[in-house]
Amino acid sequence: MRYLRRMPFITDDFLLTTDAARRLYHDHAAARPIYDYHCHLPPADLAGNRTFNNLFEAWLEGDHYKWRAMRAHGVEERFCTGDASPEDKFAAFARAVPSTLGNPLYHWCHLELQRYFGIDTVLNEDTAPEVWAEANRQLAGMPVSAILEKFGVRLIGTTDDPVDTLEHHATLQRQPLVNTKVVPAFRPDKAYTLDDPAAWNAYLDTLGEAAGVGINRLDDLLDALAKRHAFFHDMGSRLSDHGLENLPDVTCSDADARDIFDRARGASSANTASGWDDASKDVSPLHRAKFLAYLLLFLGELDAEAGWTKQLHLGAMRNNNGWAMEHLGPDTGFDSIGDFPQGPGLKRYLGTLAARGHLPQTVLYNLNPADNHLFATMAGNFNLNVDASREGRPAKMQHGSGWWFLDQKDGMRDQMRTLANLGLLRHFVGMLTDSRSFLSYPRHEYFRRTLCGLLGEMVEGGELPRDFDLLGTMVEDISYGNAARYFGM
Amino acid sequence: MRYLRRMPFITDDFLLTTDAARRLYHDHAAARPIYDYHCHLPPADLAGNRTFNNLFEAWLEGDHYKWRAMRAHGVEERFCTGDASPEDKFAAFARAVPSTLGNPLYHWCHLELQRYFGIDTVLNEDTAPEVWAEANRQLAGMPVSAILEKFGVRLIGTTDDPVDTLEHHATLQRQPLVNTKVVPAFRPDKAYTLDDPAAWNAYLDTLGEAAGVGINRLDDLLDALAKRHAFFHDMGSRLSDHGLENLPDVTCSDADARDIFDRARGASSANTASGWDDASKDVSPLHRAKFLAYLLLFLGELDAEAGWTKQLHLGAMRNNNGWAMEHLGPDTGFDSIGDFPQGPGLKRYLGTLAARGHLPQTVLYNLNPADNHLFATMAGNFNLNVDASREGRPAKMQHGSGWWFLDQKDGMRDQMRTLANLGLLRHFVGMLTDSRSFLSYPRHEYFRRTLCGLLGEMVEGGELPRDFDLLGTMVEDISYGNAARYFGM
Amino acid sequence: MRYLRRMPFITDDFLLTTDAARRLYHDHAAARPIYDYHCHLPPADLAGNRTFNNLFEAWLEGDHYKWRAMRAHGVEERFCTGDASPEDKFAAFARAVPSTLGNPLYHWCHLELQRYFGIDTVLNEDTAPEVWAEANRQLAGMPVSAILEKFGVRLIGTTDDPVDTLEHHATLQRQPLVNTKVVPAFRPDKAYTLDDPAAWNAYLDTLGEAAGVGINRLDDLLDALAKRHAFFHDMGSRLSDHGLENLPDVTCSDADARDIFDRARGASSANTASGWDDASKDVSPLHRAKFLAYLLLFLGELDAEAGWTKQLHLGAMRNNNGWAMEHLGPDTGFDSIGDFPQGPGLKRYLGTLAARGHLPQTVLYNLNPADNHLFATMAGNFNLNVDASREGRPAKMQHGSGWWFLDQKDGMRDQMRTLANLGLLRHFVGMLTDSRSFLSYPRHEYFRRTLCGLLGEMVEGGELPRDFDLLGTMVEDISYGNAARYFGM
Repeated sequence: MRYLRRMPFITDDFLLTTDAARRLYHDHAAARPIYDYHCHLPPADLAGNRTFNNLFEAWLEGDHYKWRAMRAHGVEERFCTGDASPEDKFAAFARAVPSTLGNPLYHWCHLELQRYFGIDTVLNEDTAPEVWAEANRQLAGMPVSAILEKFGVRLIGTTDDPVDTLEHHATLQRQPLVNTKVVPAFRPDKAYTLDDPAAWNAYLDTLGEAAGVGINRLDDLLDALAKRHAFFHDMGSRLSDHGLENLPDVTCSDADARDIFDRARGASSANTASGWDDASKDVSPLHRAKFLAYLLLFLGELDAEAGWTKQLHLGAMRNNNGWAMEHLGPDTGFDSIGDFPQGPGLKRYLGTLAARGHLPQTVLYNLNPADNHLFATMAGNFNLNVDASREGRPAKMQHGSGWWFLDQKDGMRDQMRTLANLGLLRHFVGMLTDSRSFLSYPRHEYFRRTLCGLLGEMVEGGELPRDFDLLGTMVEDISYGNAARYFGM
Repeated sequence: MRYLRRMPFITDDFLLTTDAARRLYHDHAAARPIYDYHCHLPPADLAGNRTFNNLFEAWLEGDHYKWRAMRAHGVEERFCTGDASPEDKFAAFARAVPSTLGNPLYHWCHLELQRYFGIDTVLNEDTAPEVWAEANRQLAGMPVSAILEKFGVRLIGTTDDPVDTLEHHATLQRQPLVNTKVVPAFRPDKAYTLDDPAAWNAYLDTLGEAAGVGINRLDDLLDALAKRHAFFHDMGSRLSDHGLENLPDVTCSDADARDIFDRARGASSANTASGWDDASKDVSPLHRAKFLAYLLLFLGELDAEAGWTKQLHLGAMRNNNGWAMEHLGPDTGFDSIGDFPQGPGLKRYLGTLAARGHLPQTVLYNLNPADNHLFATMAGNFNLNVDASREGRPAKMQHGSGWWFLDQKDGMRDQMRTLANLGLLRHFVGMLTDSRSFLSYPRHEYFRRTLCGLLGEMVEGGELPRDFDLLGTMVEDISYGNAARYFGM
Repeated sequence: MRYLRRMPFITDDFLLTTDAARRLYHDHAAARPIYDYHCHLPPADLAGNRTFNNLFEAWLEGDHYKWRAMRAHGVEERFCTGDASPEDKFAAFARAVPSTLGNPLYHWCHLELQRYFGIDTVLNEDTAPEVWAEANRQLAGMPVSAILEKFGVRLIGTTDDPVDTLEHHATLQRQPLVNTKVVPAFRPDKAYTLDDPAAWNAYLDTLGEAAGVGINRLDDLLDALAKRHAFFHDMGSRLSDHGLENLPDVTCSDADARDIFDRARGASSANTASGWDDASKDVSPLHRAKFLAYLLLFLGELDAEAGWTKQLHLGAMRNNNGWAMEHLGPDTGFDSIGDFPQGPGLKRYLGTLAARGHLPQTVLYNLNPADNHLFATMAGNFNLNVDASREGRPAKMQHGSGWWFLDQKDGMRDQMRTLANLGLLRHFVGMLTDSRSFLSYPRHEYFRRTLCGLLGEMVEGGELPRDFDLLGTMVEDISYGNAARYFGM
């Protein structure tokens, strides 16, 4: 009976291949709480202490990682994003699982089944019905608050639009979770994205309402953003986030920015929703890049003045499948790793903020691992401390953890080896889930096992001293302490 | 006597460093037949059942890998491509072999001497005469058909120009090889390459003759290509192939394409053979890119309609040494790995075909390993199955095996690790020789040993379950079954 | 007492994880002398046989690697480049050292303390005073000549500006060091850098004086450069060096070059020191690229005619932190790894020189490891030997050792694996310190241990034959013999 067969590879020592790794993980990493400073969990689920009706809702409903694997396995789309029943979708996923051997999904799935439900079987077509029934039975008694308690989650940083009322965060402040603080993060991508004039203009209307500002001129937009930034600050936010292909390598004067704003504002009526009228050249690609550059600098200064940390997620090439974008929308599993030039824009942006004396703490995340070395060394250019104000606060600039497609053993190892070689791994703020699912907390365990596995190999290979006080403290800090001190939320 | 000294490193367990690897290779990979879906073997040699006069003809005559190594060893060009005798050229190569330690040539050479001739000695200056004599003696009784039988080659996919008469393929259909099917592939690179107007116009004349179409307008060219595509289909072809630096990130309307065709067609008389007259700007670089984009879309639709698979070999920077290009011609060992932007063109090309509902099965090969992650994730964007028509036919889009310079242990491992992390290694169509030599079949063995070596390490490291049914079937399929089912030739 | 605690990881077998590695290192690498063909040691220190007053002078004074680490640790700038006392700066560095775990600095520091001073303790806040006292005591009796003797340094190639009088080299020729030859290298970066007109014009004035040529026209500049090149040749130089983001992919006729020279020469009065007046467009970015291309070709021909070797250090993105550039100047630790396109410029430059029959021996160094494959294969395009003149002189084109940020175990391994896979590791000219410090010689040991570690793993993994004659000679040659023969200085 396959159900009863225990998975031999999710053992206590999963991914821990050396004595040093095992000692570091079990003595110094395993019991650390979780500081999940960046994720996409819905604040409503937290405020409402949601209970999931079944494993589909908790695991598959919005998970484009799983959809991609199912599609590659040949599964028809109606079992991914379509109208098949939750149970049929789960069964379709279970059929694909044995073909994910070697993919992090294979690890994540079995680790999650084990850690949440104590289910030790492999998941496949045969075991799907039993897993479905058992997980659903347990989920009925597993509200979100119980999950957070079980995994020792001390902080959750959600990702929020400046127009968001943060009503669920307000609820959570009035009625806090027992041991978990929840804070919003400020993600203003829609404010500077001029690709679709109708969408941008509509967004500015909404933003103006949220801020109580009529947005007719550039200064109104800046004012509205500043007001929302201040509101987020009052609500506990200390973190902003941007998702971009790369940073623009252009300058933009105040006058230019005003001119571009004036061209774009109100242009929705004269242009189609599918983009700017190229013939009129009202808002050219260069205009868009300049406007983006201008607003990013403004937002960087806001962060610096408020003592926030900025996150830059760079390098995703999104919505590559036009058919899917039209029929299924964004964030449905049709994005990939891009090869955009990253150096010039990073140099210009960080250098300009540094020259103005308004460079905030920043975490640089690259999606293409070919950029690991560039990002790790670029971060190292901006740690200069002109005075003693950052004493005891190391590594102002961070090279962020392996992200999205890189959120797997090789990706995380490469990022950590690169950071170790080119910067100070000791001060790394470590892992975040970046997830939309409450079932993703074992990724912190996965990261910590990978970290300890790497350090253990370095000890065995003679690259690190066999000093478990020194290394143990390092592991503890990368697991939790560094992030808690760095973000200060 | 050195001849008698056995090579200690080409053992039964060559490259198999773990128990799991040895078990997977010997029980599941070694005996699989070979499905060599893409190579450059001459159809005439197959139809004529060629016997080689000596090891030079079989091994060195057209092998630019070996020439590059000889040049790096300081060998004079006349021993590579020049007028030295076959035996002297072989001796010159043998002198260079000990300096290839660490290069795949060192493995390939000794593996091939062992597997074809049972020669276990190391090759060097001292042993060259004996190896030469012994291999030549055996080659006299080793026609091509015996080689194919020995290695269990079930299918050979050659690479052919649309103007080719495929007469040798016709011969092979009338008088087939015992266990080996031979099919042509359609490689129309010359039809859209406008760099040299005289060459392009001459090519169109030849193509027109082959298709029985006078090519005076764009539609004639499309018609001729479609006719040859249909002819190749009738001759058993189900595969096309393109070799390009990258895909163009431009659009081209029908009217634009007609205009560019009209500028270029007949331009040979008004332009020199060395290129378009830049002053007149008759056919600018942008024109060339647009024309390429237009024809690639047309050819993609042809493939989709006929149920073929398309191969895209991207990233080679060719003919870098002008002196060599002038004196020795192309494909003589002066190409390298380029750093062309790949993302935007891939997104545009595959996305456009997908939007048209005419995206064929496609294998994406990148030459620069820095693009591995981009290619693996790009493939994953186009596996969407809108209906059940691909049920049981997984991984429509494939990330192709390490190619050319990457056809070595590290290159193959990196590609497989990346594919495993970002897609489904389980459905990988695996190895092809891409070779011009009948002595290259042990590269399938080399690939399989590398695959099993990698999986074995993952088992020992706890990353894969120690389930030899599951893993063994996977190894069997990547070695043979996946490709045989995927290409359906 | 921590001082007495020996470092357990700098053992005799540091980084040597296999029996084969230990045998290769101890029997074949350890005793080889050092041929340090490229460094930045000050000739004055060599000619004057400098003795250092303290460990700060010898170790920290100009070391931007250490400054970057200190900044990332949160150390205030006055302890890096500022006005703190030498002892306080050393103490600040010592406090940062435990946080460099995993960084090559951690290895280098402890290796250097051990090899120069026999200090086996770990360096940290507690041990800093003792280390400071003990190292200073020993440094008093350790003039530069004693260091060179101790490490078996047979050759030092310094890096010198064409305007340099080479007076210290002259001194060293009159009164040579006992076993160490010192030769200059020709680094003419300032002659073709048109970014700052005032600086360029001032430089040309100085160059003219040094060469005894009034530089009023382009031909004067070429004449002056040729004269200085000849002078360097007379002084024993056989090596040039260039540091560039990438090579320009443009052509430049004689007439264009004359025109650009005329625009730029004397332009200093009409332009500000901060750059060319963009409005007047006197010297556009394209002009600068063309001028650079023209001079690089001229300088390449000079090298080829004189039988020199050229070094190209490509890929650094410099001076990223504007504040630091303004207040601290260049080379103070604010540079990073760039993502510049490298292929097209390399193809054009090397191809043009090859076509002219004037391609010198060249070492190609890339700073971004994502370019390893491109560089290794590009080098392989230009080894063609049209006649027998290079018999016994292999690998005219070299892929240079891991450089700057890549001068660590992973960086060196990646470069050597790539070179092995794509070229001939056997003929690699190996390590150079590239250092400004006399305490950096253990980096050769570090390199050799890394080399032997890599080869040892390949032997254990069955990738190399267990033939210690063959491998031992290879190790000896990569450690010393290849470079000594290749550079011929």
